[in-house]
Amino acid sequence: MLSELQSTLESIADDKSVRVVVIAANGPAFCAGHDLKEMRGNPRKEFYDALFAQCSKFMLTMARLPQPVIARVHGIATAAGCQLVAACDLAVAADNSRFATSGINVGLFCSTPAVALSRNLSRKRAMEMLLTGEFIDAPTAKDFGLVNRVVPLDQLDAEVKNLANAIIAKSPVAVATGKRMFYPQLEVGVEEAYQQAAEAMACNMMAEDAGEGIDAFIGKRPPVWKGR
Amino acid sequence: MLSELQSTLESIADDKSVRVVVIAANGPAFCAGHDLKEMRGNPRKEFYDALFAQCSKFMLTMARLPQPVIARVHGIATAAGCQLVAACDLAVAADNSRFATSGINVGLFCSTPAVALSRNLSRKRAMEMLLTGEFIDAPTAKDFGLVNRVVPLDQLDAEVKNLANAIIAKSPVAVATGKRMFYPQLEVGVEEAYQQAAEAMACNMMAEDAGEGIDAFIGKRPPVWKGR
Amino acid sequence: MLSELQSTLESIADDKSVRVVVIAANGPAFCAGHDLKEMRGNPRKEFYDALFAQCSKFMLTMARLPQPVIARVHGIATAAGCQLVAACDLAVAADNSRFATSGINVGLFCSTPAVALSRNLSRKRAMEMLLTGEFIDAPTAKDFGLVNRVVPLDQLDAEVKNLANAIIAKSPVAVATGKRMFYPQLEVGVEEAYQQAAEAMACNMMAEDAGEGIDAFIGKRPPVWKGR
Repeated sequence: MLSELQSTLESIADDKSVRVVVIAANGPAFCAGHDLKEMRGNPRKEFYDALFAQCSKFMLTMARLPQPVIARVHGIATAAGCQLVAACDLAVAADNSRFATSGINVGLFCSTPAVALSRNLSRKRAMEMLLTGEFIDAPTAKDFGLVNRVVPLDQLDAEVKNLANAIIAKSPVAVATGKRMFYPQLEVGVEEAYQQAAEAMACNMMAEDAGEGIDAFIGKRPPVWKGR
Repeated sequence: MLSELQSTLESIADDKSVRVVVIAANGPAFCAGHDLKEMRGNPRKEFYDALFAQCSKFMLTMARLPQPVIARVHGIATAAGCQLVAACDLAVAADNSRFATSGINVGLFCSTPAVALSRNLSRKRAMEMLLTGEFIDAPTAKDFGLVNRVVPLDQLDAEVKNLANAIIAKSPVAVATGKRMFYPQLEVGVEEAYQQAAEAMACNMMAEDAGEGIDAFIGKRPPVWKGR
Repeated sequence: MLSELQSTLESIADDKSVRVVVIAANGPAFCAGHDLKEMRGNPRKEFYDALFAQCSKFMLTMARLPQPVIARVHGIATAAGCQLVAACDLAVAADNSRFATSGINVGLFCSTPAVALSRNLSRKRAMEMLLTGEFIDAPTAKDFGLVNRVVPLDQLDAEVKNLANAIIAKSPVAVATGKRMFYPQLEVGVEEAYQQAAEAMACNMMAEDAGEGIDAFIGKRPPVWKGR
């Protein structure tokens, strides 16, 4: 599964026809994380090292993808499934969905999920989820900042489409600029962050799409993006 | 405008008669960001480099000012106007005010606003605003941590004054200590942060105002600040 | 008091019979911070340097303790008392409790409390508390992420026990893994954080408790932790 997701994302990165990625699931749950039987059946540190390295690589690949990634969440999202929601750029959840970092219940602290979770939630909330393994419901997940929007299950696809369409209507140059600048600047001091951002913004202004967008705005007409 | 704001702040920094700075706007909006016509009329990378460097410098100057800076927000605060709210120490908004990082609508991702916004909001909320360009209303801005207080427009000046007066009633030494220590310690690890903070607090304790404040507290009388 | 707390925590760290630490107070308040008379009675920088170094060391010791630390808050938590709540891993508060960083009222900005507070609250909320010294009530503290749960005073001990019991039911190996990995990974970039977390998780998988936990989960029986 991780290999397939990884190679799919890599093939998408340079595909200009793909504007937004939606991570969705078949079946009753969004994602319950790693396959515990598979993990238990390979009790070697090398196996676990490779597994968690692969999983982490996938999460970083989503952040580095030029296209925004939206989690479409229904049912439960637990352990690495909760991490998957946290690691997406945006998330829309059905009101019946629930979230937990439940590894602690089987003697395995959700350490890799904690990386993504603690970058979405304030630390006491993250710590409570990680130490108790207890579920939070969808409204709480929205209140905590883990998901952006919560809607009834029968409106989930429509709401994901609304959000995706809002992004698709934008210039691909501007969207890719945003994806590229957003996460790295969070990891440096504010002065360096402004230097990175000022460079990103000046380059963005030199793109044809920014000229077109501003001309269209001034001319009170819709813009026609060229993607460059 | 940026030049005027910059030189005003610089002249204020050493003026002990200025205790709090309020950034407010005339006209129907708080601030709609950069002048798009001016930007479009100067399509050279050097112009944009200089413009965003100047804008970033101003935002950093507010953070480094000894006096707290309060945004008084009414109407809309968009793009660099939204950044301006985020970059102030505190913000009070009229309940009719709205906030957006709307550059994405004209093909220009709000990269420099993202630096300030992502240091105020949790990342999925910041990302949604940046990628969709959609407005959030004042109660949502308060819920997200972008502003401190929301009041009806006809009470906005009174509420800003309440907040400013609460700060003016404090010792200038203590307030300047706070402004100086708060942002740098956010950019280092917790151990180094405590070292910086312990030094700041010990120095603050050696100031006359701390002695006076504690003596007044123990003596159950109002303190008389000397500002040293 | 700080010396006693420090030596107690140090004696607890290696005591496998201690699974959770609860910081609670006798008397009408949780903690009102440093003793102002003691501070004022020793007006030497060396005294303050030593005092704030000792206080900071204690806060860091809580974070580095293998066992989770829960603040049980009733009444007021002010200045270093508010810091104490912020520096605990988790916090449960009575609905009558109130929180302030009130040093600013006596001419002493709460610089060391600011380190802990600004790592729990969004920055404008932290800045408002620090600059105004005003109280926030318990529901607001929960909304801001300063505490996890708020209950009526007569249910406070029961709720603290619920939370503690939820943690005690978990494997000590998994809990200690979590405490050890959580805070350091917040201070590095996301790529390095994933490397640290992947190593922590692979090591956790090699512990007997993880094997037992997963076997019990698959076998639909309760796990029997060995603590190794």
